[in-house]
Amino acid sequence: MIETKKIYLDCAATTPVDPEVFEAMEPYFNKIYGNPSSIHSFGREARSALDKARQEAASFFNCESEEIIFTSGGTEADNLAIMGCVFGSKAEKPHVITSKIEHHAVLSTVEHLERKGVIEASFLGVDEFGEVSVKDLEKAIKPNTVLISVMYANNEIGTIQPIKEIGRLVREINKQRGEKQRLYFHTDAVQGVGYLEADIKALGVDLLSMSGHKIYGPKGIGLLFIKSGTEIVPILHGGGQELKKRPGTENVAGIVGLAAAINKIKSQKSKARMTEDLRDYLIGEILAKIPDTILTGHPKKRLPNIASFCFKGVEGESILINLDLAGIAASSGSACTSGALEPSHVLSACGIEPRLAHGNIRFSLGKFTTKEDIDRVIEVLPPIIEKLRRISSIH
Amino acid sequence: MIETKKIYLDCAATTPVDPEVFEAMEPYFNKIYGNPSSIHSFGREARSALDKARQEAASFFNCESEEIIFTSGGTEADNLAIMGCVFGSKAEKPHVITSKIEHHAVLSTVEHLERKGVIEASFLGVDEFGEVSVKDLEKAIKPNTVLISVMYANNEIGTIQPIKEIGRLVREINKQRGEKQRLYFHTDAVQGVGYLEADIKALGVDLLSMSGHKIYGPKGIGLLFIKSGTEIVPILHGGGQELKKRPGTENVAGIVGLAAAINKIKSQKSKARMTEDLRDYLIGEILAKIPDTILTGHPKKRLPNIASFCFKGVEGESILINLDLAGIAASSGSACTSGALEPSHVLSACGIEPRLAHGNIRFSLGKFTTKEDIDRVIEVLPPIIEKLRRISSIH
Repeated sequence: MIETKKIYLDCAATTPVDPEVFEAMEPYFNKIYGNPSSIHSFGREARSALDKARQEAASFFNCESEEIIFTSGGTEADNLAIMGCVFGSKAEKPHVITSKIEHHAVLSTVEHLERKGVIEASFLGVDEFGEVSVKDLEKAIKPNTVLISVMYANNEIGTIQPIKEIGRLVREINKQRGEKQRLYFHTDAVQGVGYLEADIKALGVDLLSMSGHKIYGPKGIGLLFIKSGTEIVPILHGGGQELKKRPGTENVAGIVGLAAAINKIKSQKSKARMTEDLRDYLIGEILAKIPDTILTGHPKKRLPNIASFCFKGVEGESILINLDLAGIAASSGSACTSGALEPSHVLSACGIEPRLAHGNIRFSLGKFTTKEDIDRVIEVLPPIIEKLRRISSIH
Repeated sequence: MIETKKIYLDCAATTPVDPEVFEAMEPYFNKIYGNPSSIHSFGREARSALDKARQEAASFFNCESEEIIFTSGGTEADNLAIMGCVFGSKAEKPHVITSKIEHHAVLSTVEHLERKGVIEASFLGVDEFGEVSVKDLEKAIKPNTVLISVMYANNEIGTIQPIKEIGRLVREINKQRGEKQRLYFHTDAVQGVGYLEADIKALGVDLLSMSGHKIYGPKGIGLLFIKSGTEIVPILHGGGQELKKRPGTENVAGIVGLAAAINKIKSQKSKARMTEDLRDYLIGEILAKIPDTILTGHPKKRLPNIASFCFKGVEGESILINLDLAGIAASSGSACTSGALEPSHVLSACGIEPRLAHGNIRFSLGKFTTKEDIDRVIEVLPPIIEKLRRISSIH
């Protein structure tokens, strides 16, 4: 049997650790292994690596070191942002606004707090392209609104949200509020940060979460930018690590890896352009070659690496399995909800009817994706869809 | 300048990753890098590694795979155990019993819940050796007691708690309670699990937390054993990972490393005997050579690797700095509280007066500790104490 090269087009689910990132992490497993809280030389070496990583992350986001809090990943960062703000607020029943297309790390946290009666919550709808309306958002703001959480770019469809406009609106509201309860703005930038503007001053956010393993860093590490002065309380309790905002011995190797991955983002801008070209080539060919197909997400305001389609009359899972047999890894909706029977909450929010939404496939490209990889998809996918439609009872 | 070998005697703060553990982890950074939630081959490979790690951990603890939940470390595991049980309880105002000498991950969590008015809390004192009295514990149990959290072995003084007896007591109480609110028993086994009995059925615990980086595994990973049927709710919200008890993309490399480190514990029993001999040698020599010195903790019921002393009339920090200059890494109290001005809460609970407690040094040995390392401490420490006492105003 000839071993064909496997093609990985699921970079929005996770990415391999970049070899240079791994190289940066490696000494921190058993050469520089001290606990950063220890005052002896082993501890100081680890502390110094931690400080350096924090400075590097801060420099990337154009913020202060003290505004970067390392967490165990994007999910914990989102939880800390939302629960930390809600429990840190003095409002009697704080109001939180989010969108219907957030990642479950945001959505489930807000839903949980609402169900417990801790907060009032508003879930903003989106247009057919998956974009939040800033006007709708403005209308939803109430005197007890303490937090707006809108993702930077969607993980399933790639649509980029108007973060800067929301940032400006929030600043405006806070001017009007004066000394009263501040309104905070959080963005889950897990998908966006590898490709889009990351200057938090330009974005105008108070809180921004990200994850290592979506940007060629390790799994199990992420961070939350918390703008100085934000009233936020920890959600885990213990030692005084991470400026008393996140206890537990620091994952030094993971943090060093995250910083190394962040450092590489800037130098990858040219690769991002290439990724975008490959994505457009894929979109063009798929739409041309496979009838009854729609592209999800925004036609223009979208991440360079995500191309998600709905194929009429077929099941996404069947497509995935056939692609997998052909050595191509893709996804149907978010990997976190795979196995779920309901159609993706993101596609539903875009108004895509359930039957069509079930035929969803997301290709998420990365910096290691080649034209040959895309050519192979274009060769393999049309006959798969054709075959499945032939045997399908719903087409 | 001659480079002398540095001696690391702070294994209770953290340990280097065992080379074999690192070898086991290595493929999971950029060779087997899929997201375990993905259904394609990359995802299935990762899922299979995750399942295997869970089975290995379960086998070590003599429990079922489904009873093992991976977390970002000991602190998160402790938080999940306590907050998860409290928020999962139907009791109107649940009562939690813990001890005064717990790690801050337990103590601060219980204190936080008490301060917020969510629970009633009882903090059990200990005797001069740092041991909790099972009789005192029994007396503290009330109808609304939902959780007892007593650590397996203390991180600062090494005292081992009567876990099996507490386990028996809890089973007895639950028999009496019948169908009513169950009483759960959690133990923070972060320090104990590398050396002591780990069969959770023999221990009689419902919840047990541990951490990778104290047993020659990586930092940033830990686990919580949750006995099947325990009414516990997640403390973080998001995807359905970890049997819906802990969301977030799994730290596959970390989990594989944790399992590899757990697998090595059994084969290290002979090394533990050696560690115990070295510890006793250290204790004997220090007590013989340095007057006005006490050994903290229990004379017999103690971890094989911890020897903690209080030296009258000196500051622990000054001793640490002098030891560090001599190339020896030790600790004063828990690394997590280093820098704190108050004396250790553990030493205070043992009735050691603050002035004496301030002169505390903990040596925590490990499997890489040699007799030469201990000989060097015995050579270096007495003149350091003598010098410091000469210049001290408090001696």
